[in-house]
Amino acid sequence: MKKGIKVVSIGGGSSYTPELMEGFIKRYSELPIKEIWLVDIEDGKEKLEIVGNFAKRMWKAAGYPVEVHLTLNRREALKDADFVTTQFRVGLLYARIKDERIPLSYGMIGQETNGAGGMFKAFRTIPVIKQIVDDMRELCPEAWLINFTNPSGMITETVIRKLGWKKCIGLCNVPVISIKKEPATIGTTSDKLHYRYAGINHFHWHRVFDENGTEVTQKLIEHINDADGGTPKNIYQAKFSLDLLKTTGVLPCGYHRYYYMKNEMLGHLMDDFNRHETRAESVKEVEDKLFEMYKNPELKTKPPELEKRGGTYYSDAACECISAIYNNKRQMMVVNTENNGAIPCLPNDTIVEISALISAQGAEPLAWGEMKPHERGWLQVMKAMEECTIEAALSGDYGAVLEAFNINPLVENGDDAIKVLHELFVAHEKYLPQFADLIKSLKAAGVYPKDETVRELLAQGK
Amino acid sequence: MKKGIKVVSIGGGSSYTPELMEGFIKRYSELPIKEIWLVDIEDGKEKLEIVGNFAKRMWKAAGYPVEVHLTLNRREALKDADFVTTQFRVGLLYARIKDERIPLSYGMIGQETNGAGGMFKAFRTIPVIKQIVDDMRELCPEAWLINFTNPSGMITETVIRKLGWKKCIGLCNVPVISIKKEPATIGTTSDKLHYRYAGINHFHWHRVFDENGTEVTQKLIEHINDADGGTPKNIYQAKFSLDLLKTTGVLPCGYHRYYYMKNEMLGHLMDDFNRHETRAESVKEVEDKLFEMYKNPELKTKPPELEKRGGTYYSDAACECISAIYNNKRQMMVVNTENNGAIPCLPNDTIVEISALISAQGAEPLAWGEMKPHERGWLQVMKAMEECTIEAALSGDYGAVLEAFNINPLVENGDDAIKVLHELFVAHEKYLPQFADLIKSLKAAGVYPKDETVRELLAQGK
Amino acid sequence: MKKGIKVVSIGGGSSYTPELMEGFIKRYSELPIKEIWLVDIEDGKEKLEIVGNFAKRMWKAAGYPVEVHLTLNRREALKDADFVTTQFRVGLLYARIKDERIPLSYGMIGQETNGAGGMFKAFRTIPVIKQIVDDMRELCPEAWLINFTNPSGMITETVIRKLGWKKCIGLCNVPVISIKKEPATIGTTSDKLHYRYAGINHFHWHRVFDENGTEVTQKLIEHINDADGGTPKNIYQAKFSLDLLKTTGVLPCGYHRYYYMKNEMLGHLMDDFNRHETRAESVKEVEDKLFEMYKNPELKTKPPELEKRGGTYYSDAACECISAIYNNKRQMMVVNTENNGAIPCLPNDTIVEISALISAQGAEPLAWGEMKPHERGWLQVMKAMEECTIEAALSGDYGAVLEAFNINPLVENGDDAIKVLHELFVAHEKYLPQFADLIKSLKAAGVYPKDETVRELLAQGK
Amino acid sequence: MKKGIKVVSIGGGSSYTPELMEGFIKRYSELPIKEIWLVDIEDGKEKLEIVGNFAKRMWKAAGYPVEVHLTLNRREALKDADFVTTQFRVGLLYARIKDERIPLSYGMIGQETNGAGGMFKAFRTIPVIKQIVDDMRELCPEAWLINFTNPSGMITETVIRKLGWKKCIGLCNVPVISIKKEPATIGTTSDKLHYRYAGINHFHWHRVFDENGTEVTQKLIEHINDADGGTPKNIYQAKFSLDLLKTTGVLPCGYHRYYYMKNEMLGHLMDDFNRHETRAESVKEVEDKLFEMYKNPELKTKPPELEKRGGTYYSDAACECISAIYNNKRQMMVVNTENNGAIPCLPNDTIVEISALISAQGAEPLAWGEMKPHERGWLQVMKAMEECTIEAALSGDYGAVLEAFNINPLVENGDDAIKVLHELFVAHEKYLPQFADLIKSLKAAGVYPKDETVRELLAQGK
Repeated sequence: MKKGIKVVSIGGGSSYTPELMEGFIKRYSELPIKEIWLVDIEDGKEKLEIVGNFAKRMWKAAGYPVEVHLTLNRREALKDADFVTTQFRVGLLYARIKDERIPLSYGMIGQETNGAGGMFKAFRTIPVIKQIVDDMRELCPEAWLINFTNPSGMITETVIRKLGWKKCIGLCNVPVISIKKEPATIGTTSDKLHYRYAGINHFHWHRVFDENGTEVTQKLIEHINDADGGTPKNIYQAKFSLDLLKTTGVLPCGYHRYYYMKNEMLGHLMDDFNRHETRAESVKEVEDKLFEMYKNPELKTKPPELEKRGGTYYSDAACECISAIYNNKRQMMVVNTENNGAIPCLPNDTIVEISALISAQGAEPLAWGEMKPHERGWLQVMKAMEECTIEAALSGDYGAVLEAFNINPLVENGDDAIKVLHELFVAHEKYLPQFADLIKSLKAAGVYPKDETVRELLAQGK
Repeated sequence: MKKGIKVVSIGGGSSYTPELMEGFIKRYSELPIKEIWLVDIEDGKEKLEIVGNFAKRMWKAAGYPVEVHLTLNRREALKDADFVTTQFRVGLLYARIKDERIPLSYGMIGQETNGAGGMFKAFRTIPVIKQIVDDMRELCPEAWLINFTNPSGMITETVIRKLGWKKCIGLCNVPVISIKKEPATIGTTSDKLHYRYAGINHFHWHRVFDENGTEVTQKLIEHINDADGGTPKNIYQAKFSLDLLKTTGVLPCGYHRYYYMKNEMLGHLMDDFNRHETRAESVKEVEDKLFEMYKNPELKTKPPELEKRGGTYYSDAACECISAIYNNKRQMMVVNTENNGAIPCLPNDTIVEISALISAQGAEPLAWGEMKPHERGWLQVMKAMEECTIEAALSGDYGAVLEAFNINPLVENGDDAIKVLHELFVAHEKYLPQFADLIKSLKAAGVYPKDETVRELLAQGK
Repeated sequence: MKKGIKVVSIGGGSSYTPELMEGFIKRYSELPIKEIWLVDIEDGKEKLEIVGNFAKRMWKAAGYPVEVHLTLNRREALKDADFVTTQFRVGLLYARIKDERIPLSYGMIGQETNGAGGMFKAFRTIPVIKQIVDDMRELCPEAWLINFTNPSGMITETVIRKLGWKKCIGLCNVPVISIKKEPATIGTTSDKLHYRYAGINHFHWHRVFDENGTEVTQKLIEHINDADGGTPKNIYQAKFSLDLLKTTGVLPCGYHRYYYMKNEMLGHLMDDFNRHETRAESVKEVEDKLFEMYKNPELKTKPPELEKRGGTYYSDAACECISAIYNNKRQMMVVNTENNGAIPCLPNDTIVEISALISAQGAEPLAWGEMKPHERGWLQVMKAMEECTIEAALSGDYGAVLEAFNINPLVENGDDAIKVLHELFVAHEKYLPQFADLIKSLKAAGVYPKDETVRELLAQGK
Repeated sequence: MKKGIKVVSIGGGSSYTPELMEGFIKRYSELPIKEIWLVDIEDGKEKLEIVGNFAKRMWKAAGYPVEVHLTLNRREALKDADFVTTQFRVGLLYARIKDERIPLSYGMIGQETNGAGGMFKAFRTIPVIKQIVDDMRELCPEAWLINFTNPSGMITETVIRKLGWKKCIGLCNVPVISIKKEPATIGTTSDKLHYRYAGINHFHWHRVFDENGTEVTQKLIEHINDADGGTPKNIYQAKFSLDLLKTTGVLPCGYHRYYYMKNEMLGHLMDDFNRHETRAESVKEVEDKLFEMYKNPELKTKPPELEKRGGTYYSDAACECISAIYNNKRQMMVVNTENNGAIPCLPNDTIVEISALISAQGAEPLAWGEMKPHERGWLQVMKAMEECTIEAALSGDYGAVLEAFNINPLVENGDDAIKVLHELFVAHEKYLPQFADLIKSLKAAGVYPKDETVRELLAQGK
């Protein structure tokens, strides 16, 4: 492959960028990057400056001749790019605060990736990813799009299936975390184990085998509730039922807690809500601190505090994936890619999160085979929710939104769910052009978020 | 076909039996029954006497030479039967009271067919239907089994798919009601419309066409919330969102209210619970009155009060189905039968509730084709719930029970769900031999229903 | 439905038209036709005059006030049509002679519906049906298209799936013949039997049940080789292996002989070829005689000689189908329509030939369920052949043609197959505009049919 | 994994055994074998002695302390085996001569793996593999079965799907050959290319990508007819149509010639037949020479002449596969294993030949995704042929045999096919216990092979 790679990172002002830089720095010998373009929008200009300058310091300290460009001009950046990473958050963390607090203000889990909040994140993000792909088609038609903007599965499905951009891989850090942490619970290390994942983003299961080919899934199930059992720390660690898991025979991901132990999770989230410590608010605080650190001209390496941010390993996975493509590694990773029959109970052309080989021609999923009814049913309803959400995001149709809400297991169907829905529309008005008329009529009817925190954000124009 | 049909009705002491008798009486000219055997168990002996004698009076008044036999000996009855109907309720209405009240005592919908209650109804019924099929294999190997014991879909699936008895059709009155009532909402009659149903028991959708082949589904959707819109009266009439339904393009059944407007339904059920007017309790009252009436030696025709019972049209549908088989009618009915590809998003060999032609060789479903994601996802998760429930009922495995509970959309997963589960086990101990050890250990651990009404029933040995 | 139906018959100069007229005459009381437009092209003008005038005499003799219009202006005819029947043959019987003789001149079965000949019939017909549908979209957007131009399945698939015209039903007389003839072989009549068909056009199987629901398929298999066993007379009656059929458990159609007993069929066809009695040539002779008869101004009813023509019952089936739609009959017929899961081993959106209910909204197939490997494999390869053929016909791509030829079980792959292919292209040049460049280059390379009969036809400009 | 591996090779007297020994010798450092048991039957005793002693010399010359045991007692050998390879040929090469000559004596391709001959090879082999698996269940329940007895796909399907022995992988040398030879045709080497295969044994396609992820399949298609284009040399190199292959977009395997250019292949085979140089006869001659060489006590390494044998690379692939399992290599190989959705147009539980990762837990296929109609149709009919063949082999049912023959594209259906079938039964009587009654009646009816060579073999009791 050509020397002198050009990488473009949309949402370059993200607090994750230093991890991304670190990932590229430690792989420089195998991944000879020439230019990195950090792109952001007007609203993110200040953060872009801070993090961008920090990035420049990191590369300088590393001693590699990589140019780091900061720009608000996405088209300029995309020109002739080789790899484009997307790590942007439409509406910044303020939007996530609304995604989480509005549902909780009605006693409903918001869940910023697969719940009501996650659906609105999709509604906000999909119009933007469409613009990005349109630009890429014109400016860098051979580039790979490595997405780690959430909801990663739905964004990847939009890019590949709806927009027809096949050179796209979606990433998530959840599988990375379990592969890194879980083995210690049974006294081994990940290099001695073989991991197989299947499902969709934030809703997948895995099976694990040791060096002799013996399945150790049941042993790992025994330890899933251990203090450091491999599920992401940003999720409250409600205990899984071992009786249930032993019968299913597969390890769930951390996000399954919202479904398998919904009420415990809701209780915990309500406490957070009341203490103004929803995940979004906590992350906001962490981020503010991170940006303060990033400003420090002496800081030249990724600070350990970033790990608290929740998205740890995400950016490293992106670097790993880029390197696997560039170097044609045939490396096993867990990614969002086309199903192609790997999970036979889902459509062939849908996007799944699955163990796949990553090489120059992209991701090749390993066939998982039939799922048992319990996993099959859950997975099928969640995939249908994703399809309805994407359809609604693209069409701007209210009935389609209702379908998506109605089928989402985290939405408690009823009058309150409709209130939550309407308040979310009003709260996110700025980022939902496809729903402009609907929102106008909701506002005319007096719909307005009841949560004080959200009201304040809106009053501040956020 | 042979003259002189022998019909056996298991659960003959049911309050529905008079409707069944009426159905046979009005079809006598086309369905020449010779013997009717009403079978019940020791606990139902008194009711069997009452309703059996009433049945005899009905036939006598009708003037047809049909022998009505009352027996507690099922094997004697089954010998050489042509048609066996199953309309029994293991544990009588007392069991249904427990099914409904125990979940509600934790603020959870019990729903005696597809909710936690329905799962326990399956757990109680499946061991009995297995015995019946074993007897039939020996005593009447050519007989048709017409099931209208709930949960009708799961029982039919057990009979056909698990026990391998192919000559079985499952019935439900829900489609019958909409076909009878709905047309008036758009000023027409059912004979002028063509109904197409697909889904599973108590979870199906339909589309309707007029005499010109024009689809009138959207017109009917407009009227679904009308006072007499065609959904069963025994379900609280929470309003459907027309915006949602118009987008789906299909008419839901009444039971969809528990899913599409879960919170409104729960609110209403909690009121009923607090007033001791759960559906089970109301039905118990209606039934007691009915049996008082049935005792009246002057009563010779089905009293109109029976319609309040909730199961109206059920028995008539059974008679219609039997006649369609006997007379090889190729008549369109909505029944539970093997999918065979009719709903492609479900396995071929699973049981679905669907428009089918009924003739001498059984039910032949009409192909429905692909479902859109919203219906597909809901249907697939509900079917998986049925499969898990049947598996649990047959295996007596606790992990399998947890799978079934966990995937059921009406079960609110969490600690309370487990309490509900355990209390239901203890409350139904008498009828759950396959779970004997589990229940023993639960009792040893002090599990006992907290609801006073249930405690009283248990104290009375019910 | 409206009174005063307008029926348009494309290919109105066909020798079948009198059967179509007879079918409409005998159904006049239920199907109140006002106008019949017989449409043909310049080359068929003389036949149109003859048969059109005969049609007028038939209606006059019947005493019904139906206007019969003869025209070469298809667009004038289509305006506001209610039903359009297509029974045209591009290139007349001369084309069929080429379809059959060219393959046989290389010792290969031509088979004018599913063999090399049938593929060329599809290549010639598909461009024309596309024009017809384009006209209908503009001139009669609510009309039903009842196709009985062969290859009926591929034409129907093109109309419904490729051109998106959903109001289309394809017909074939093969199932009609077996339903009419077969029952006598076991001493019963068709009204006492229940027929279930599944497969594709000229490649389907059926199962049969008696009035008691007992399957009589095996009994019918015993008699399939009887003198009048229900398979079309225009196919040489090579004997089926009863051992094979008993194991398959399904009754094949007459056209299965070309596959199950290929060599016997080829031997017989070679004899015909050498005697200049290929089916096409025989039919040509029969037709010439028929048209002589039709000229007779005294002839006012369909002459019995028409039955020899081979297509008997085709037109009657079309009338029956139109009446079933118009009168919303919910009548069981065997038609070509969308699969919708009825045959699960084929795609949902493909066209199958299957037992279906015909009513005002069209055809609703009955679910057949899984096929055993023997039928499944045959059916899947034949359906793939159809798909490749349609793709080739629409794209005009030579590689696509090779795919279609290569996968066709009646084509003997090798150099001779390519010669047959090339000669067919040259022989049909006039009717294959989509392959114009290819044919030009073949001719430049000196390709020319070697069969004398075909050469004569070409010399005559036919 | 444990040290001191025990390998058992059923059919140890095979001429391939030296390649197997060589494969183990060169991998000794990674695959520490302790014992090799070469097992054969009484009829193969002499060959076993020759090749076994040669094997001992090979190991001695290599200087590794591996015990080589020769035995006719399979059960003794299997005790505590770690890996069992099956490379036996029921009926020796005499049987293959019959498989090829009997069909050719009627002008029909015999093809010893997928044609009429291959079906009889399956009929002979399946009863034996069943006995082997029965023994393994008792004597070495943890062993892996590495099968390279043909028809490799059908034997693997029998072992995994029918006998339920999951630890089985089937091998074939055809993909190995193309990976080794093909790259040179476009001036590159296999380590620079990424190969993806999908299909079934001797009927698969592949796509190839270069180091930049660019597909080079079309470039390779251009060279498929090159002198050393990567298809097995034991198959006559009839030329593929590049127009066809370019449209399919996939590279066929060498065996596709029997289907895509059937007539050329048949012509060539008839020449071989007439010259007594059928593949079986040539191989017999090569083998005889090989065994002469093997007798030479000075010979201590695999002689280059073995490569002419046709099965080259087979044994090496077996060693590679065993090492990949033992060392948990996650190595990409093309193997016969469970589909699990990898090829969505085939059943999930069927056996396919596909690119898979081989590691300690076995083979994990890479998902291929949907096939286009041309490949899909061919593959589905061939898979159905395999299923029918296995069913016939296990059941011994004549109707099932007819189904298998009837659906096989290499069998020319008709009277001659039945004669071929019957002669094959009689010729192989000794090895077809499941068809004993059938064969008895055929012989009683005077059925006897007409080919002189076959008659001679039978006269000699072979």
